[in-house]
Amino acid sequence: MTGQYNSEIDLGFARLDVDRAERTGDPEVVFGGVKTPGQVVTALRTLHQAHPDLPVLATRLTDETIALCRRELPGVQVDAVGRTAVLGAARPAHGRVAVVCAGTADLPVVRECAVTVAAFGSRPETIADVGVAGIHRLLAQRDRIASCDVVVAVAGMEAALPSVLGGLVGAPIIAVPTSVGYGWHMDGLTAWLAMLNSCAPGVLTVNVDNGFGAGVAAARIARRMGG
Amino acid sequence: MTGQYNSEIDLGFARLDVDRAERTGDPEVVFGGVKTPGQVVTALRTLHQAHPDLPVLATRLTDETIALCRRELPGVQVDAVGRTAVLGAARPAHGRVAVVCAGTADLPVVRECAVTVAAFGSRPETIADVGVAGIHRLLAQRDRIASCDVVVAVAGMEAALPSVLGGLVGAPIIAVPTSVGYGWHMDGLTAWLAMLNSCAPGVLTVNVDNGFGAGVAAARIARRMGG
Amino acid sequence: MTGQYNSEIDLGFARLDVDRAERTGDPEVVFGGVKTPGQVVTALRTLHQAHPDLPVLATRLTDETIALCRRELPGVQVDAVGRTAVLGAARPAHGRVAVVCAGTADLPVVRECAVTVAAFGSRPETIADVGVAGIHRLLAQRDRIASCDVVVAVAGMEAALPSVLGGLVGAPIIAVPTSVGYGWHMDGLTAWLAMLNSCAPGVLTVNVDNGFGAGVAAARIARRMGG
Amino acid sequence: MTGQYNSEIDLGFARLDVDRAERTGDPEVVFGGVKTPGQVVTALRTLHQAHPDLPVLATRLTDETIALCRRELPGVQVDAVGRTAVLGAARPAHGRVAVVCAGTADLPVVRECAVTVAAFGSRPETIADVGVAGIHRLLAQRDRIASCDVVVAVAGMEAALPSVLGGLVGAPIIAVPTSVGYGWHMDGLTAWLAMLNSCAPGVLTVNVDNGFGAGVAAARIARRMGG
Amino acid sequence: MTGQYNSEIDLGFARLDVDRAERTGDPEVVFGGVKTPGQVVTALRTLHQAHPDLPVLATRLTDETIALCRRELPGVQVDAVGRTAVLGAARPAHGRVAVVCAGTADLPVVRECAVTVAAFGSRPETIADVGVAGIHRLLAQRDRIASCDVVVAVAGMEAALPSVLGGLVGAPIIAVPTSVGYGWHMDGLTAWLAMLNSCAPGVLTVNVDNGFGAGVAAARIARRMGG
Amino acid sequence: MTGQYNSEIDLGFARLDVDRAERTGDPEVVFGGVKTPGQVVTALRTLHQAHPDLPVLATRLTDETIALCRRELPGVQVDAVGRTAVLGAARPAHGRVAVVCAGTADLPVVRECAVTVAAFGSRPETIADVGVAGIHRLLAQRDRIASCDVVVAVAGMEAALPSVLGGLVGAPIIAVPTSVGYGWHMDGLTAWLAMLNSCAPGVLTVNVDNGFGAGVAAARIARRMGG
Amino acid sequence: MTGQYNSEIDLGFARLDVDRAERTGDPEVVFGGVKTPGQVVTALRTLHQAHPDLPVLATRLTDETIALCRRELPGVQVDAVGRTAVLGAARPAHGRVAVVCAGTADLPVVRECAVTVAAFGSRPETIADVGVAGIHRLLAQRDRIASCDVVVAVAGMEAALPSVLGGLVGAPIIAVPTSVGYGWHMDGLTAWLAMLNSCAPGVLTVNVDNGFGAGVAAARIARRMGG
Amino acid sequence: MTGQYNSEIDLGFARLDVDRAERTGDPEVVFGGVKTPGQVVTALRTLHQAHPDLPVLATRLTDETIALCRRELPGVQVDAVGRTAVLGAARPAHGRVAVVCAGTADLPVVRECAVTVAAFGSRPETIADVGVAGIHRLLAQRDRIASCDVVVAVAGMEAALPSVLGGLVGAPIIAVPTSVGYGWHMDGLTAWLAMLNSCAPGVLTVNVDNGFGAGVAAARIARRMGG
Repeated sequence: MTGQYNSEIDLGFARLDVDRAERTGDPEVVFGGVKTPGQVVTALRTLHQAHPDLPVLATRLTDETIALCRRELPGVQVDAVGRTAVLGAARPAHGRVAVVCAGTADLPVVRECAVTVAAFGSRPETIADVGVAGIHRLLAQRDRIASCDVVVAVAGMEAALPSVLGGLVGAPIIAVPTSVGYGWHMDGLTAWLAMLNSCAPGVLTVNVDNGFGAGVAAARIARRMGG
Repeated sequence: MTGQYNSEIDLGFARLDVDRAERTGDPEVVFGGVKTPGQVVTALRTLHQAHPDLPVLATRLTDETIALCRRELPGVQVDAVGRTAVLGAARPAHGRVAVVCAGTADLPVVRECAVTVAAFGSRPETIADVGVAGIHRLLAQRDRIASCDVVVAVAGMEAALPSVLGGLVGAPIIAVPTSVGYGWHMDGLTAWLAMLNSCAPGVLTVNVDNGFGAGVAAARIARRMGG
Repeated sequence: MTGQYNSEIDLGFARLDVDRAERTGDPEVVFGGVKTPGQVVTALRTLHQAHPDLPVLATRLTDETIALCRRELPGVQVDAVGRTAVLGAARPAHGRVAVVCAGTADLPVVRECAVTVAAFGSRPETIADVGVAGIHRLLAQRDRIASCDVVVAVAGMEAALPSVLGGLVGAPIIAVPTSVGYGWHMDGLTAWLAMLNSCAPGVLTVNVDNGFGAGVAAARIARRMGG
Repeated sequence: MTGQYNSEIDLGFARLDVDRAERTGDPEVVFGGVKTPGQVVTALRTLHQAHPDLPVLATRLTDETIALCRRELPGVQVDAVGRTAVLGAARPAHGRVAVVCAGTADLPVVRECAVTVAAFGSRPETIADVGVAGIHRLLAQRDRIASCDVVVAVAGMEAALPSVLGGLVGAPIIAVPTSVGYGWHMDGLTAWLAMLNSCAPGVLTVNVDNGFGAGVAAARIARRMGG
Repeated sequence: MTGQYNSEIDLGFARLDVDRAERTGDPEVVFGGVKTPGQVVTALRTLHQAHPDLPVLATRLTDETIALCRRELPGVQVDAVGRTAVLGAARPAHGRVAVVCAGTADLPVVRECAVTVAAFGSRPETIADVGVAGIHRLLAQRDRIASCDVVVAVAGMEAALPSVLGGLVGAPIIAVPTSVGYGWHMDGLTAWLAMLNSCAPGVLTVNVDNGFGAGVAAARIARRMGG
Repeated sequence: MTGQYNSEIDLGFARLDVDRAERTGDPEVVFGGVKTPGQVVTALRTLHQAHPDLPVLATRLTDETIALCRRELPGVQVDAVGRTAVLGAARPAHGRVAVVCAGTADLPVVRECAVTVAAFGSRPETIADVGVAGIHRLLAQRDRIASCDVVVAVAGMEAALPSVLGGLVGAPIIAVPTSVGYGWHMDGLTAWLAMLNSCAPGVLTVNVDNGFGAGVAAARIARRMGG
Repeated sequence: MTGQYNSEIDLGFARLDVDRAERTGDPEVVFGGVKTPGQVVTALRTLHQAHPDLPVLATRLTDETIALCRRELPGVQVDAVGRTAVLGAARPAHGRVAVVCAGTADLPVVRECAVTVAAFGSRPETIADVGVAGIHRLLAQRDRIASCDVVVAVAGMEAALPSVLGGLVGAPIIAVPTSVGYGWHMDGLTAWLAMLNSCAPGVLTVNVDNGFGAGVAAARIARRMGG
Repeated sequence: MTGQYNSEIDLGFARLDVDRAERTGDPEVVFGGVKTPGQVVTALRTLHQAHPDLPVLATRLTDETIALCRRELPGVQVDAVGRTAVLGAARPAHGRVAVVCAGTADLPVVRECAVTVAAFGSRPETIADVGVAGIHRLLAQRDRIASCDVVVAVAGMEAALPSVLGGLVGAPIIAVPTSVGYGWHMDGLTAWLAMLNSCAPGVLTVNVDNGFGAGVAAARIARRMGG
C-alpha cells in the first residue's frame, strides 16, 4: 500500500477519489440521492476532467438535478426514467448483458441498470415484461437470453424470475429485487428474501431497487468475457 | 343461536365439540402436537364413537403417539411421514385435489395434506418434485393438474410454484409455504411472504407447513364441485 | 406447452397476455397502482377489444384515472370507494359469495372484492359491520352467511372474524386482513398473522387489503359450485 | 423517600427486598427460571420468615426444584402443571377473578395465573376450553364470567377470546397471549399483537405466557373491589 | 344469548351498537380516525339520543372534525390537545386515576386518557414530566400517586416509568407506550417491549399511544373501587 | 438522596431540571424535535439564566425555530447543518475528540456531534469523507486520529468505519450509525447492527443519527482525560 | 422449449434432472441437508452414472452420511470441514477464484465454497484470517487477490471485508455472510444486511453461510474468463 | 501505514495479530466460543509468550476448555461464572470502573466484564442487584457509584437501570443489555432497544450479553483518567 493512491480532490462537500480508476478500472460514481443539483454538476464536471477518456456517471437524480445537468453540462446524456446522467465519450463495449424484468413497474430499475452497464463498458439488452405467471412469454425469449454473457433479472412481488431463469441458462445470474407489490411486502424485503432463497444454484443478489449495483457487477463480468 | 349447539363431552383435559359436524359438516380434529399419547388415543376413540359414520383424524403425532395408536386403536390408519392417524370408515370422495410440491423435502407436508383431503371427503392426487428450476418437469404435468378441481401447491425456499401454476390453470390454488431452505429464510417466512405476493391473481395461502389447513379447505371446495 | 399460448399485444409500456383467458378462464386485469391514467385507459380498451364477451377490470385507480375512465370509456362502471373500473357486458353469475366485514373502515376492501367477484362470474352479497365485539350482530346473520357458497371475511385490528365464522359455517372461508387499527399494528401484519393462525381449520388468506385477490379466488370457487 | 425502605437481606446470590410488602402490599416473589434448586429453597424460606403471615410464591420451577421444595420445605404447596410453589398460610381472599382459556394447551399458563391470584389475596375461578371457534361454549359461560370482578383471558393462536369477551362483559379484562399454535406464529407474537389490537376497548395485556403477571394485577384489582 | 341484544341503529356508514351499555355498562365510542367530520357528528348525536344520561365520546379527531363538532353540537366539550369530543351530561365520578407521564411530548396521550377516564365515570389526576432521568421529581410525587386507585403510566423512549412506579406503589398500573424518541425506536415498539418486560410484577399494557384504551380500563377498575 | 435535588422550574409546558448540572456536571438540554419555536426560545433563555456560566444547548431545530432563535436570543450561535443553537459563554475545552465520518451524507450528524462536544467542554476535530472503500484516505489520517483522546466514528450503509479504526488506534471509539443508504437498510438498522457486531473489541454505540448522544459521552470522557 | 429437456430419472424419493447439464453446463447437485445417508449415496451414484465425465457434488453432509459415502462410494473425495463429497474425475480448471475470509470461524463456509469452485470447473485460492480490524494483514494480500478473476469474500459479524476489498480490486466480488458473532446478530442477518449495503459498488451477495451458491456463481464467471 | 505492522504468527487455525498491542495498547483476545479447547490453550500460550509483561485473556469458555486450561496452563486464573481465563502477570490498575447490575441473572455478564476490566488495566467494583423496581437499593449506592471513573450498567428485561443512573451521576455510562426476561423479549432486543433509547443523554451501549466489549471500553477510558 504505497503512496500512489493518495491523490484526491477536495470539493468542499466531498473528496473525490480520482485514483479509483487506477485501482479498480472504473472512475468514482456520483450518487445524486443526497447531493444538491449544483453539487452533482460540479462533481460530474470534475470527474470528467480527471477521466477525459471514460464516461462518468451520476445516479438517482431528482427532476431539478436533471434539468440543471441539461443546462450546464453540454453533451450530457440523461435518462429520465432511470434518473441517470452520463458525461464523456462512450466506452467500447465488451460482452453482452441481458437485463430481464417481470413487469412494467420494474422499468426504472431496468433503465438504471442498462445505463450503468454501458458506462462500465459492456452492452445491455433489455427484455421486459416476461413474468412467470405467463411462462410462455419467458420461454419464447430463452435462446436470446442464453446467448448473453451475464443475465440481470429484475423482479418484485414474489420474485420468481431468477429461479426459473436459473434452470434454463448457465450464464451468471444477478437478481435485483424491486419494491413493487399489491399489498404488504415489507418494502421489497419479500422479493429480496425470495431471491436469496432461490432454488436455482448460484443466483447472486444486490439490494432492493439497486439497478446500479447490478449494472456495475454485470459489466465487470461481461467485459472480461465477451468480444 | 339456540341451545342445540351446546352439546360437548368433557374429557378432563379437553371439552370435545361434538356438535361441530352438525354446524360445519366435519367432526373436530385432534391436534397431537400438545397432547400426550394417551390423550390422543382417548380423544380419537371418543370422537369415533360420537361420529361412527365419519373418519376422525389426528395430526402432528410423535413417534410415541403413533406407536400407542397402533396398539390401542384397531383399524387405525397411520401415516408415519405425514404423522397422521385416521380412525373409522373411509368417506365417499367427491372431486379431486392436486397436491403438487417442489422438492422432496416438502413430502411430510404433502402427506399431511393428502390424508386430510381424504378424511374430509375428497380425492387427493400427489405430484411431487416439480420445482420451477426445472420448468419442463412442471409443464409436463400441466394437463393432469388442470383436470383437478382444486390445486394445493406446496413449496419452500423462494416458493415460486404457485405463481407459475397460477398462469397455467384456472382452478383455485391454495399455497402452502414450507420451512425448507439452504441458508437464512426466517423459518419459512420467505416462502410465506412470496406466496402472499404471488403475481398470479387469486392465490390463497395457509400458515407455514400447514398441510392440514390446506387439506381441510381444499376438500371443502372440491367435494362441493366434483362428482 | 405448445405455441398456441404465444399471442401477446405489445403496448409499448406493457405486453398484454391476451391468451390468459384461454388458459385460466379469465382475462388479464389492469393493476392501476403503477400506471398512468392514460395507460389504464389504453389497457382497458385493448383488453375489451380482445375479450368482447367478458367484462374487463382495472383496480387501485387514482382519482385522476377514475375521471379519465369516465371521460374516455363509454359504458364503463366505476366504483369510487373500491377504486375499480369495469368495461364490457356483465358476466352471468354462478354461485353466491358472502363478503363479510368487521367495521366501516374495511369498506374499500369489501367493495374491491365485491366488484371482482362479479367481474369473475359470481354473485357477491355484502354483510358489513358485524365485528366480534358485538357477537350478537354476527350471530343474527349466521344463516344468511351459511347459505352462500364461499365466505370472504374482511377484518383489521385483531381480525377474529374468520375464526368465529369458521366455527359457525362449513363453507370455504377466505380471510382478508386490512391495515386498520388504533395504535401499532405493523401495517396490517397483526391481522394477517392472526388470520394465518386462526383456530378454525381451513381458513385461507390473501395479502393485506387485497380484496381483489380474495374476489378472484372466491369467484373461481363459487362459479364452479353454484347454480 | 425516607430511610425506612432501606432494609434488605443479602443472601450472597440475591438481595431480598423485604420492605416491598410495606411499600406495595405484597412480598417479593422468587423467579425460579434463573436460580438453582437450592437458591429457590433458600429464598422461599427466608421470605417466609420475613413474612410469616403471608404466603410467599415461587414460579417457573424446574422438576428438580419442585422435588427439592417438597423435600426441604414442610407444608409447601406445589402445582406441577403451573410450576409454582407456595409457602405459608393461605391469605384471606377478596373478590373473584375469572381465569378463562381457549384451549387445553393454555393450561400451564392458566394454573400459574390462578395460583398467583390466590397468593396475592383473591379467589380464582378457572373456565377452560371456551375458544371462539365454538362460540356457543363461550356464550354458555357468559353469566358466570360476568359475575366476576376481573376477567383474565388466556389464548394463543389468533387470540380472539378477549375481543369477544370485551363485547359481552363490563369487567376489566386482562389478556395473556400464549405461545401456542399450528405453524409459524413468531413465538406468541401473533397472539400478543392481536390482543393489543383488540377491537373491544380497554383490554389490557401482559407478556407472552406471563400468567404470573396477569395474576398479580388481577388480584390487586379484585381484592380492592370484592367482598 | 337471547334476542334482547339485537338492537342496532343503521346509519348507512355504520351500525351503532346501542345495546352495548346494557351489556358492558358503557356506550359505544366513536373512533374519529377513519370517519369524515360529518359522520362523527352524526354518530355522536345519535349515540347521545340513545344514551341521554351518559356522556358519549369521540376520539382521534382531525382539526376539521373538531371545528364541525363545535359548530353543530351545542354543549360539546372538545380537547384540542387530546383530540377528543364529549357530548352529554358529566357522569358521577367514582375513584381516582393518576395519569402520570415522563415528558411533555407525551401530553396528547395523557389528555386522551384523562378525558376518557372522566367519560367512563372516574376522576383523573394528571402528573406530568416526572421521567426517571430526574428520579427526585418522581419520588416527590410518590405519596400523591400512591393515594389513587389506579395508576396510568405514559412514557416513550426506554419507558422505564412503570417499572420504577411498580416498586413504589401497590395500586394496579396500566402502562401506555408512546411513539416518542430521539433516533430509531421502531415507532414506539421499544417502549412497548420495555413495558411488557417490566421487572415490576403486574404491570399491564395497552397499544402504542392508546390513551383511550388505558382510560377505559382504568375507569372501569377505579369506579368499582373508589368512593 | 436528600432534598437538595428537588429544585425545578415549571414553565407550563415543561419542568426544567435546574439541579441537573449539580448532579451530573452539565445543564439540561432542549430537545427541539417536539417543541414549538416559542417553547425552545423560552427554555433556552430560562436555562441560560439558571446557568449563566455554562453554554446551554438546543438540538433538532426546525427552520422556524432557528429563525426565531436568531431574532429573540442575542448572541446565540446557530448551526444550520447540525440544526443546533448554543446560548452563553464558551466553555473551557479539555481534551480532544476526533469526529470522523465516511461520507458527505453524514455531515448533519457530524455537526450535531461536534457542537455538542464543545458545549459539553471538549474540543472537536472533524475528519470527513474517509470511508473504507477508499482505505488509503483513512490510513492517511491515522496518526491525527490516534492523537485524540476519544474517537467518534459516524457512518451509514455497512458502517465498517469503526471496525477498521478499532484495529488502528487504542482510544475509546463511539460509533454513530446513520440512516444513509442506496436501497433497503431498514432506516439505519443495518448500520446499527453492524456497529454492535464490530470485530474490533470495545466499540461503543448510540442510536441512529444520534450525534448529540455521542457528543455528550465523548466530551465527558475527553474532558476528564485531556489537558 | 422442446421435448429434449424432458428426461428425468425417478428414484422414488426424488426425480433427478439429468438434462440440467445440457441446459446449464453443470449437473444437478445433491443437497444433503434433508436426505438420509442412503439417499445421498444413491443420488451421487446415479448422477455419476449419468455424467461419467464430470464430477458430481453433494453438500451439507452429516457425519453419518460422510461415513457411508466413504464406505459405499470408491474414489469419493470428502471434505469433513466443508461437509462435502465429490464423485468422479476432476474437471479441467479455467480461471482462478480467490476465497477470502475474515476469521477462523468462517472456515466451514470457505471450504464448501472452494470445493464447489473446483467441482464447477475453476481453481480456488484460499486466503484466510484477513479481517478488517487488522487491516495490514489484508493489504499484504492485495496483489495476490487482485490477480484472481473473481473474489469471494466470506465474513460474519459486521462483514466489512467486501467493502474494503471493493475499493482495492476491480474483479467481481461475491460476498458470503456467515452466522458468526459475539452477541445478538440475528442469525447472520447483520452480516447479510451489511453486505447488501456495501459502500463499494457492485458487491454481489448470496444467502447466509451459502458457500455453495457463491462457489457455483464464481466458477461460472471465472471459467468463462480465465485460461 | 508502514511495514512495522506486518508481524503475525500463523497457528494453522488462526493468524495471531501480535502487533496489535503496539497499535492499540492491548494484546489480541482469544474468543473461545468458536474454538476447540486445544486451540484456546495454544492461542493463550502463544499470546503469553509474545506479551510476557501483559495478562492475556480468553472468553466464552466451555466447561471442557476451562478444565483443559487448568491442566495445561500453570498459573492461569479462571472464572467459572464469567467463563474467562487469564494468563500472565496482573497489570497495574489505573482508575476505577463501577460494574452495576439489576438482578442476579445478570451475574455471568458482570463477571466477564469485571475480569476484562482488570485484564485491560483498570480496577472493577461490582455492585449487584440494584434494579429499579426497588429504587431505594440503587439510591443507597449512589455516592459509591458516582466516585468511579466509568459506570457499566448491566440489565435485562426493560433495562431501565442506565436511564436512572444517567440522571444521578456525571461519569460516562456504558450499558450492557442482557438476554434475561420473563416472557417474550426477542432474545435481549428489548433491553438493547431500551438502552439505545435512554432518556438520559450520553448512554453508550454494546451488544447483548457483551460484558467483554463493555470491559474493554471501560478500562481504556478509566485507565487514562484515574490514578
